[in-house]
Amino acid sequence: MSAIFHAGISGARGRMGRAVSAVLDAREDVVVAARFDRGETPDVSLCDVIIDFSTAEASVELARTCAARGGPALVIGSTGLSPEQEGEILKASEKIAIVRSGNFSLGVNILIGLVQHAAQRLDAADWDIEIAEAHHRRKVDAPSGTALMLGEAAAEGRGQDLPDLRAAPWDGITGPRPVGKIGFSSVRAGGIVGEHTVMFASDDEVLTLSHSAIDRALFAKGAVAAAAWVRSRKPGLYDMQDVLGFRQA
Amino acid sequence: MSAIFHAGISGARGRMGRAVSAVLDAREDVVVAARFDRGETPDVSLCDVIIDFSTAEASVELARTCAARGGPALVIGSTGLSPEQEGEILKASEKIAIVRSGNFSLGVNILIGLVQHAAQRLDAADWDIEIAEAHHRRKVDAPSGTALMLGEAAAEGRGQDLPDLRAAPWDGITGPRPVGKIGFSSVRAGGIVGEHTVMFASDDEVLTLSHSAIDRALFAKGAVAAAAWVRSRKPGLYDMQDVLGFRQA
Amino acid sequence: MSAIFHAGISGARGRMGRAVSAVLDAREDVVVAARFDRGETPDVSLCDVIIDFSTAEASVELARTCAARGGPALVIGSTGLSPEQEGEILKASEKIAIVRSGNFSLGVNILIGLVQHAAQRLDAADWDIEIAEAHHRRKVDAPSGTALMLGEAAAEGRGQDLPDLRAAPWDGITGPRPVGKIGFSSVRAGGIVGEHTVMFASDDEVLTLSHSAIDRALFAKGAVAAAAWVRSRKPGLYDMQDVLGFRQA
Amino acid sequence: MSAIFHAGISGARGRMGRAVSAVLDAREDVVVAARFDRGETPDVSLCDVIIDFSTAEASVELARTCAARGGPALVIGSTGLSPEQEGEILKASEKIAIVRSGNFSLGVNILIGLVQHAAQRLDAADWDIEIAEAHHRRKVDAPSGTALMLGEAAAEGRGQDLPDLRAAPWDGITGPRPVGKIGFSSVRAGGIVGEHTVMFASDDEVLTLSHSAIDRALFAKGAVAAAAWVRSRKPGLYDMQDVLGFRQA
Repeated sequence: MSAIFHAGISGARGRMGRAVSAVLDAREDVVVAARFDRGETPDVSLCDVIIDFSTAEASVELARTCAARGGPALVIGSTGLSPEQEGEILKASEKIAIVRSGNFSLGVNILIGLVQHAAQRLDAADWDIEIAEAHHRRKVDAPSGTALMLGEAAAEGRGQDLPDLRAAPWDGITGPRPVGKIGFSSVRAGGIVGEHTVMFASDDEVLTLSHSAIDRALFAKGAVAAAAWVRSRKPGLYDMQDVLGFRQA
Repeated sequence: MSAIFHAGISGARGRMGRAVSAVLDAREDVVVAARFDRGETPDVSLCDVIIDFSTAEASVELARTCAARGGPALVIGSTGLSPEQEGEILKASEKIAIVRSGNFSLGVNILIGLVQHAAQRLDAADWDIEIAEAHHRRKVDAPSGTALMLGEAAAEGRGQDLPDLRAAPWDGITGPRPVGKIGFSSVRAGGIVGEHTVMFASDDEVLTLSHSAIDRALFAKGAVAAAAWVRSRKPGLYDMQDVLGFRQA
Repeated sequence: MSAIFHAGISGARGRMGRAVSAVLDAREDVVVAARFDRGETPDVSLCDVIIDFSTAEASVELARTCAARGGPALVIGSTGLSPEQEGEILKASEKIAIVRSGNFSLGVNILIGLVQHAAQRLDAADWDIEIAEAHHRRKVDAPSGTALMLGEAAAEGRGQDLPDLRAAPWDGITGPRPVGKIGFSSVRAGGIVGEHTVMFASDDEVLTLSHSAIDRALFAKGAVAAAAWVRSRKPGLYDMQDVLGFRQA
Repeated sequence: MSAIFHAGISGARGRMGRAVSAVLDAREDVVVAARFDRGETPDVSLCDVIIDFSTAEASVELARTCAARGGPALVIGSTGLSPEQEGEILKASEKIAIVRSGNFSLGVNILIGLVQHAAQRLDAADWDIEIAEAHHRRKVDAPSGTALMLGEAAAEGRGQDLPDLRAAPWDGITGPRPVGKIGFSSVRAGGIVGEHTVMFASDDEVLTLSHSAIDRALFAKGAVAAAAWVRSRKPGLYDMQDVLGFRQA
């Protein structure tokens, strides 16, 4: 139905790069035109869109290269960008279309909307918000980028910024819980693919909104869906809420 | 701030009636003007609003009595009404304002909106919906009225009616799960106050939306909030989505 | 450390057969000497042990063949055997060593022991037992064989037989929960690999023992561990509690 | 059946003291002979046993007083004792019988045994242990005393001491999870009575053992059961494993 397009994979030998490769290979409407990794200079001219799960530095470098030549479009899944690096991505998006997200799954992106909606309706004076996540033992940072995205959605629902609300992990003599704070807790164990839970608790009831990834292929599939979407967009910085059509015009 | 109002309690000696009584006694803006039970003929003229957790028959009788004299307003929490009895309530609501709900908690009523929203966005071909609930050992019916309300919200999100989608409990040789069905499962154990979970599952991920009641007082508080809201409404049949302002005009 | 052994795979083209094959291929101490499927007559003489995930009939036929010639040993994971078929397996085990189990994972087999232990200590008059399980949409029977194994462990802990305690799914007008019954509930949705929960609930507290499979390879690995164990045993019918050394002599 | 005994309540006006009082008042075999609080000098001679939920200092003072006069027996539920204060309790137990516990519920004490058992069987090289707990917003310390008891049981199952295994909360750039560590995470929200979860996770599966308190009365009932048990014991320091008969002679 849709025309064939040419995709590149940046960070091709990483875990996500290989998962993206498997998903692309299974699709009949995509040709993988380039695979490259850290230290390699890709010929981006072969691609309509590049899916990038590399490092913060490599992503910024790639965005600059593509912006300078007016394409191709990008899907960026790298994490841990500094505010300066985020600024570079934003600047590149004046010239090319970029989808950037911390989580490409449909379920998580639905969850983000639900969390914002609930946070808007549940008075901070009565309802505490806690975000818990669990991942495999190889994950090197905590809380997960997705947990922070969920925290931002909750804060936004309350008309505030996450940095003003984020609590340190409850540990030691904490005193009673401060009103309005958003707590985070992380579990690292075994091969857990990825679990996220947002809890809203009052004195009498608890509302819990959760997401659980069964298979890592999930994230690769979402990134490929983003690639198919972004390759024909005009320049700008998009996220999965745009790709999925969740953002009102 | 709000003027004092006079409330009646129908089913006053039942578990919920006593919980409502305790909540009303703790409020300064309410006078309990009448308490009555099955077989007693109440003087409803003393009340601005009556909160009714009795039986299907008693609720219908009460609605008729109040409608005939043009008041007071009603909050009805009785369950197990037949379609005929539901029709009687609807008829009474032409003359008086009635809030009727299977669950008066804020959290559950938020959850209903979230479930409808998610069901709307998650394609039935890919996403299975399952509703699980757990209650104490004294509960005599299954699934709970609240589980069915959640099922209706999910069906509505899909533009369908629950009776067309509701699956029997998975038990025995079931064959593969039919696409589009909504499954229900119930746990009955110990003193569990009330747990409800709506699960949306695709091949690769699971989105779970849950509610857990900590204290039964929750439902009484919600019914009293409904009473305070409904006593000054014009005739009509309302539910908690109206009371909480979740229904768009 | 351990000597090389020769393994056969019965039901080799099924989902579990292929998973077993992948696990065997990755081990250096195993040679896969035979792969066969329904309707094929295998040369079992090449094998020290055969891992069988086929059908009830094929398993019985294989057990008879091996028993008649005094070997090889068997690991049987087929489900749905009738009492007569179970009798045939028992009879074959007089001549050869057979491990038979509904679930080869270490975690589930630990869980079985914990459930029995807890059921022994928690008085049936005060504590209700409920077993809930969730599996993918392709599973054709409910409750799962593993859920029934857990139910048997709970019943055994109470010194009773599961058939005397097993309750039908709570559905419709059930009346209050009967004392001492063990309830089962099943969820079928998406790609859920396999979840099992045993809940013990009193009026004031709930103890929950659960197992969640992350990767289906789990069951194949356990079956291969059983094969390595059983190939040098004397005739008899064993289960994973024996393989794991959990059964006291 | 059992003879009437005389109980005292130390910390009588605290939340737990009042809960204990309510449980004692409902029993026909107990006379409450003394109620006292911080700063009051009780006449302990009226009591067969005293149930003490006060402060670390008050508990030590009470233990000294009772030890000096050879009775009555004590049930101590105060938390936050320093090693020196723990030493004082131990010394007092040479003269009188004392039950000391961080959690008097039957379910938690069963859970402690199950956790130790599972930790013993699940190799630390393959299985990570994480302990998560959730409590109401008024709780002032984290992790809970019960979470630490569960951690000690897990460490003991591995033949090690908890201080050697306990990890700091996963937060920031943590690197891959160190093998063998036991992680802790805490949630503080709303009116959650008390939830504890011990997770054992390998690459392929997760075993989860949890406890959830429905009603705070639970802990008071357990403390009263301990009082009935300890009043006729010989001097010594006991815990709930002794009261419940879980410790082998």
